[in-house]
Amino acid sequence: MSSKIKVAVVGASGYSGRELLRLLLLHPNAQLVGVTSRAAAGKPLTTEFPRFRGVAAADALTFITPDIDKIVATGAEVAILALPHGVAHEFASALLEAGLRVIDLSADFRLRDASVYAEYYGHEHPSPELLDEAVYALPEIKGDVIKGSRLIACPGCYPTSVLVPLVPLLRAALLTEEAISVSSMSGVSGAGRKESVPFLFCECNESVRSYSVPKHRHISEIGQELDLAAGRKVRFSFVTHLIPVNQGICTTIFTSLRAGVSLADVERVYAEAYAHRPFVRLLGRNNSPDTKNVTGTNFIDVGWSLDERAGSLILMSTEDNLVKGAAGQAVQNLNIICGFEETAGLMVL
Amino acid sequence: MSSKIKVAVVGASGYSGRELLRLLLLHPNAQLVGVTSRAAAGKPLTTEFPRFRGVAAADALTFITPDIDKIVATGAEVAILALPHGVAHEFASALLEAGLRVIDLSADFRLRDASVYAEYYGHEHPSPELLDEAVYALPEIKGDVIKGSRLIACPGCYPTSVLVPLVPLLRAALLTEEAISVSSMSGVSGAGRKESVPFLFCECNESVRSYSVPKHRHISEIGQELDLAAGRKVRFSFVTHLIPVNQGICTTIFTSLRAGVSLADVERVYAEAYAHRPFVRLLGRNNSPDTKNVTGTNFIDVGWSLDERAGSLILMSTEDNLVKGAAGQAVQNLNIICGFEETAGLMVL
Amino acid sequence: MSSKIKVAVVGASGYSGRELLRLLLLHPNAQLVGVTSRAAAGKPLTTEFPRFRGVAAADALTFITPDIDKIVATGAEVAILALPHGVAHEFASALLEAGLRVIDLSADFRLRDASVYAEYYGHEHPSPELLDEAVYALPEIKGDVIKGSRLIACPGCYPTSVLVPLVPLLRAALLTEEAISVSSMSGVSGAGRKESVPFLFCECNESVRSYSVPKHRHISEIGQELDLAAGRKVRFSFVTHLIPVNQGICTTIFTSLRAGVSLADVERVYAEAYAHRPFVRLLGRNNSPDTKNVTGTNFIDVGWSLDERAGSLILMSTEDNLVKGAAGQAVQNLNIICGFEETAGLMVL
Amino acid sequence: MSSKIKVAVVGASGYSGRELLRLLLLHPNAQLVGVTSRAAAGKPLTTEFPRFRGVAAADALTFITPDIDKIVATGAEVAILALPHGVAHEFASALLEAGLRVIDLSADFRLRDASVYAEYYGHEHPSPELLDEAVYALPEIKGDVIKGSRLIACPGCYPTSVLVPLVPLLRAALLTEEAISVSSMSGVSGAGRKESVPFLFCECNESVRSYSVPKHRHISEIGQELDLAAGRKVRFSFVTHLIPVNQGICTTIFTSLRAGVSLADVERVYAEAYAHRPFVRLLGRNNSPDTKNVTGTNFIDVGWSLDERAGSLILMSTEDNLVKGAAGQAVQNLNIICGFEETAGLMVL
Repeated sequence: MSSKIKVAVVGASGYSGRELLRLLLLHPNAQLVGVTSRAAAGKPLTTEFPRFRGVAAADALTFITPDIDKIVATGAEVAILALPHGVAHEFASALLEAGLRVIDLSADFRLRDASVYAEYYGHEHPSPELLDEAVYALPEIKGDVIKGSRLIACPGCYPTSVLVPLVPLLRAALLTEEAISVSSMSGVSGAGRKESVPFLFCECNESVRSYSVPKHRHISEIGQELDLAAGRKVRFSFVTHLIPVNQGICTTIFTSLRAGVSLADVERVYAEAYAHRPFVRLLGRNNSPDTKNVTGTNFIDVGWSLDERAGSLILMSTEDNLVKGAAGQAVQNLNIICGFEETAGLMVL
Repeated sequence: MSSKIKVAVVGASGYSGRELLRLLLLHPNAQLVGVTSRAAAGKPLTTEFPRFRGVAAADALTFITPDIDKIVATGAEVAILALPHGVAHEFASALLEAGLRVIDLSADFRLRDASVYAEYYGHEHPSPELLDEAVYALPEIKGDVIKGSRLIACPGCYPTSVLVPLVPLLRAALLTEEAISVSSMSGVSGAGRKESVPFLFCECNESVRSYSVPKHRHISEIGQELDLAAGRKVRFSFVTHLIPVNQGICTTIFTSLRAGVSLADVERVYAEAYAHRPFVRLLGRNNSPDTKNVTGTNFIDVGWSLDERAGSLILMSTEDNLVKGAAGQAVQNLNIICGFEETAGLMVL
Repeated sequence: MSSKIKVAVVGASGYSGRELLRLLLLHPNAQLVGVTSRAAAGKPLTTEFPRFRGVAAADALTFITPDIDKIVATGAEVAILALPHGVAHEFASALLEAGLRVIDLSADFRLRDASVYAEYYGHEHPSPELLDEAVYALPEIKGDVIKGSRLIACPGCYPTSVLVPLVPLLRAALLTEEAISVSSMSGVSGAGRKESVPFLFCECNESVRSYSVPKHRHISEIGQELDLAAGRKVRFSFVTHLIPVNQGICTTIFTSLRAGVSLADVERVYAEAYAHRPFVRLLGRNNSPDTKNVTGTNFIDVGWSLDERAGSLILMSTEDNLVKGAAGQAVQNLNIICGFEETAGLMVL
Repeated sequence: MSSKIKVAVVGASGYSGRELLRLLLLHPNAQLVGVTSRAAAGKPLTTEFPRFRGVAAADALTFITPDIDKIVATGAEVAILALPHGVAHEFASALLEAGLRVIDLSADFRLRDASVYAEYYGHEHPSPELLDEAVYALPEIKGDVIKGSRLIACPGCYPTSVLVPLVPLLRAALLTEEAISVSSMSGVSGAGRKESVPFLFCECNESVRSYSVPKHRHISEIGQELDLAAGRKVRFSFVTHLIPVNQGICTTIFTSLRAGVSLADVERVYAEAYAHRPFVRLLGRNNSPDTKNVTGTNFIDVGWSLDERAGSLILMSTEDNLVKGAAGQAVQNLNIICGFEETAGLMVL
C-alpha cells in the first residue's frame, strides 16, 4: 500500500500513549505524523521512551505541544486522544472542526446521558452536543455502526472486560434478573503515569487491595451498555482491585441462568457472537484465562463455568488494560474506520 | 513464667512450617523442642532456613525424621502438624494416643461429615472416628469450645477470610437468601513449597488467573460453617485467584441485606462480635483492606460497603494466608488451649 | 525494667520512619512518646500506617508537627531523626541544646570533612561545628566510641553493606592496593516515600538499572571509612542498581589478596572481628547471601569466595536497607547509648 | 517473497523455545514447520502456550517428539535447537548429516577447546569433531564468518552482555591488563522452565542473591572470546545475581583505560564498531541502560562512564536474556545465513 493514513497521538507520554506509539510505529497502514506532550514538548520521542530508540519511525519524531494548530499542521487525518477525561472533549471538538476524525480514549464521549456523566465524573458534561454523534466503539458488540463514525469513544478498560462476556448472554436473554456481581483485578498501569505516593513501587508491590468501593466510575458505562443489551435495567455490583502487575485485567463475573437454560446454550450464543471475531478467544468450559497470555496483545480471553451447587454461572475474562482495554482497541477502531484489515498492526505477540 | 510448653512442629520445611518456626522461636511461653522434615532430616534448621540463623533457639535445632517415636522423645506436649491432607490424620491419631495434644493445619479434621471429605478430597476419610472429637478452631467464631479440646483443626486460609466477615451477619439473620458470591485472591505461598512448573517465578509473576473453578476444596468447610451459622443451607459461589505476591489473601464478598436491615445494623453486629477480639480489625464503612497491612501478622482486616444502586452489601477482608490463615491461627489456638494470653507471641509487626 | 527510655521519632511518615515505629512500638526498653510528620500532623498514627492498628502503643499516638518545642514537650530523652539531609542538622542542633540525645539517620553528620559534604551534597555544610562531636556509628566497626556520644550519625544503607565486609580486611592489611570494585543492588524503598514518576510501580517492576554512575553520594562516606581502616587512600568504584524488591541490599565486592595471604587468613580476621557481633552472620566460603534471609531483620549476612583464576577475592553481603541500613541500626545505637542489651527489640523475624 | 525458509524448533516447550516461536510465528521470511517437545508431543502448540492461540500459524501446529526422522519429515531446511547442553550435540550431528543447517542455543558448540568444555560442564565433549566447524555466532563481533556456516553456536545470554561492551575496546587495546570485574544480574527465566524449588515464585520474589560464585559456566566462553579479542590472556572475575524479573540481564563491568587513552577514544571505537549494527544502541556517556527498555526486543543497550576518582572505566549493558541472549540472536543468525535482512522479524516492540 503506497499511501498510509496519517495519525497523530495527542497525549503521548502516558501509558496508553506509549502503547499507541508501540502499535502505530510498526503499523503497516498508518504513519505516525505527530505526538504531543505538554511536559516533553521539544524532546525527541526516544528520550521519553528509550525503548523505541533504533526504530526508524521513532527516531524521526519529536514531541510537540498539544496545540490544535500544531496538530493540524502535522497533516494528520486521524487524531487519537490519550488525554484525561474533562480535557479530551476540547481537543475532540476542535479537531473534528478542523476536519480530522477523532478516536478518544477518555471517558468524555462514552455516555449517552450527560447527567450520568455529571453524577460519575463530578462536573457538568462540557460538550453535550457531541454525545449524539459519538459511538461507543466496542467493535465486538457494536459491529458496523463504528465504520462511518468520525467521533469514536473507546470503552474503558474494565468495561471491555465486563461487556464482552456479558452482552451476548443478556441480548439472548439467558440470564435471570438477580444482581450480577463483578470482581475485577487490574495492573497498576491503570492508574496512569503521574506522580503519586499510592502508586509507588513499594506501595503496590506485595499488596492486593480493593478500591473505589462501591461506586467506581466505570459503573456508569457498564450500566449503560448492559441495560442496552438486556432491554431492561440490569442490577450489578462492581468491585475493582489493584494487583501488583504492570498490565492486565482479570474479571470474574457471578450471574445465573434462567430456568431451562443450559451451559450449552451459553456456548452456542458465544460461538455465534464471537467465533469470527479475531480478538475474542473462547477458552471453553471450566478453563480459566490468565492475564499473562494476553499482555501486550489485543486479545480478550473468555472462560466460563457452571456452579451447579450454588446455581451460579461464572464468567471469566482477561485482557491487557492498555491494549484491548485502551490503545489496541483504538487501533482496532482506526482499522475499522479506515477500511483496513481489522487485525492490521495488531497481531503482535 | 518459668516453665514453657514444649512444642514440636511436624512438617516444618514448608511455608506454613516456616511461619510456625518464626512465631514459636520467639514465643514467650513456648519452647520448640522438635522440628521434623523427611527431606531435611539430620540437617540443622538454619541450613534449610538461613533466615533464622543467629537466633539461639534456632541454632540449637536439627531436623528429625517424622517418626512418632522420635517426636514423642522430644518431650513435646503439643504437636503442630503442617502436613498435607491425607497424611496428617495418621500422625494426629498416634500422637493423641501418646498423650500429646494436636493442632492440625491440614484439612483432615475440619469437616464433620466424612462423606463431604470424600467428595472434596477424592478419597474416603481415613480416621472418621476422630471427627467428633475435633474442633473447627476459628477462635473468633468458636470461642470457648476450643479451650478444652485435644484435637484442634485449624481452618483453611480462604475459609478464615470468608467466615470472619460472614458468620456474625448470618447468625444475626441480616442477609437475604440470595446466592452469595465470593471472590478471593491469594499469594503464591498458598500453593506450598514443592517442585512445580505452574508455580515457578516466571509462571506467576506478571500473571493473574482464577483457578479450581467452580469447585475449590475449601467450599466444603466454608459451606459447613455458613450453614451452621445461618441455621439453613446457604447458597454461595467461590472463585479463587492466584496473585503475584508471596503472602496475603484478599477476599471480596457480594451479598444483600434483608428488607429493613441497614448498614448500621451490620456495624452493630460486627462491633458486638469483634470489638474485643484482638486480631479482627474493623476498618469501617467504605474502607478497603490491603494485604500489605496484614502480611506477617495475625490480624484480619474487615471493611464493608453498601452498594445501594445494586442493592448489594460488599464485605472485604485481608489476612496473611500463612499467618492468620495457618501458622498464626495455630499459635493462637495453642495459646487458647494452654491458657496463655491469646496474643502471646503474636504481636509481631 | 520499670522505666523505659522516652523516644521521639522526627520524620516518621517515610519508610525509615515506618521501620523505626515498627521496632520501637514493641521495644522492651523504649517508649515511643512522639512522632512527627509535617503532612500528617494531627492524624492518628494508624491512619498513615494502618498496619500498626491494634497495637496499643500505636493506637495511642497522633502525629505532631516537627517543632522543637513540641518534640521537647513530649518528654523525649532521645530523638531519632529520619529527615532528609540538609534538614536534619537544624533539628539535631536544637534538640541537643534542649538536652536530648540525637540519633540521626541522614547524611548530615556522617562526614568529618565539611568540604567533602559540600562536594557530594551540593551545598555548604550547615553546621560544621557539630562534625567533631558526631560519631559515625557503625557499631560493628566503631565499638565503644559510640557509647558516650550524644550525637549519633547512623551510616548510610549502602555504606553499611560495603564497610562490614571490607573494613576488617583493610585493617589487617590483607588486600592489595588495586582498585576495589563494588556493585550494589537496592530495593526501591531506598528512594524514599515521595511523589515521583521514576519510582512508580510500573517504572520499577520488571526493570533493573544502574543509577548515579559514576558518583553516588555514598562514595563520600565509604571513602572516608575505607581510608581510615586502611591508613591510606583506598581506590574504589561503586555502582548502584535499582532492583524491583521493596527492601534489601545485595552488595558484591571485587578485590584482591596481597601475595602470601590466603582465604584462611580472611576467615580468621572475620572470625576475630565478628564472631561475637550479634548481627553479623558469617556464611562461610563460597556461600552467597540472599536478601530474603535478612529483610525485616537487623542482620547483615556476609559470604566470600576466592576466584583463583582471576586472582580476585569476592566479598558478598546482604542486609535490609531500612533495618540494618537505617532504622535497625538506629535502634542498635539507641541500645548502645542507653546501656541496653545490644539486641533489645531487634531479634525480630 | 513467495517462498519462505522452512524452520523447525527442537525443544520448543522451554522459555527460549517459547521466544523462538513468538518470533518465528510472525517472521516474514520463515515458516515454522515443526516444533518438538518430549513432554507435550501430540498436543496442539496452543495448549502449552495459550498466548499464541488465535495466530493462524500457531493454531496449525502440534508438538512432535524430538526424533530425527520426524524432524526431517517436516521438510525443515534449518533446525534451531533449544535443548540442554549435552543433549543438543546429538541432534546437531544427525541433522547436519540429513542436510539441514543447525542453529544451536546450547553450550555444546561454543568452545573451541574440548578440554575447557570438560572442565566447565563436567563431562567430556561428546562431539569434538564438530568444534572446528562450529561458529561462535555473535553477529556484532563475528561479522561475515557466520554467513557461510552450517553449524551456528549462539552465544550464552550473559556472554553476549559482556562481550558486546568489551570486545571492541580489547581489540583496540584501550584497556590496562588489570583484572576486569563483571557483575551481572539476570531475570529468573535464565534458570529454565523446569520443576524446581529454588525457582518457585516465593523463593525468588523479594529476593536478590548471587550464585555460582566464583566459577559460573559462562566464564569459559567469555574467557575464550576476550582472549581472542585482546590477543592475550585476559584476567576477569564474573559474578552473577538472580533478580526477581522474568526477563532481562543487566551487566556492569569495571575495567580501566591505559595511560593516554580517553573516554573520547572509547566512544570513537564504539561508534566504529557499532554505529551501523541495528541491534546495538549506544546510549552515550553516563547513561545507564535499563532492562525494561530491551525486554521482548533484540536490542542490547550500552552505556559507559569514567570514574576519574578511582581510575576506572565502567561499562553497562542490558539485553533480554531470552531474546538478544538466546532466541532473538538465533533468528538474527537465521537471517544472516539465509541472506534475509538482518532485522527481519526482529523489529518487535
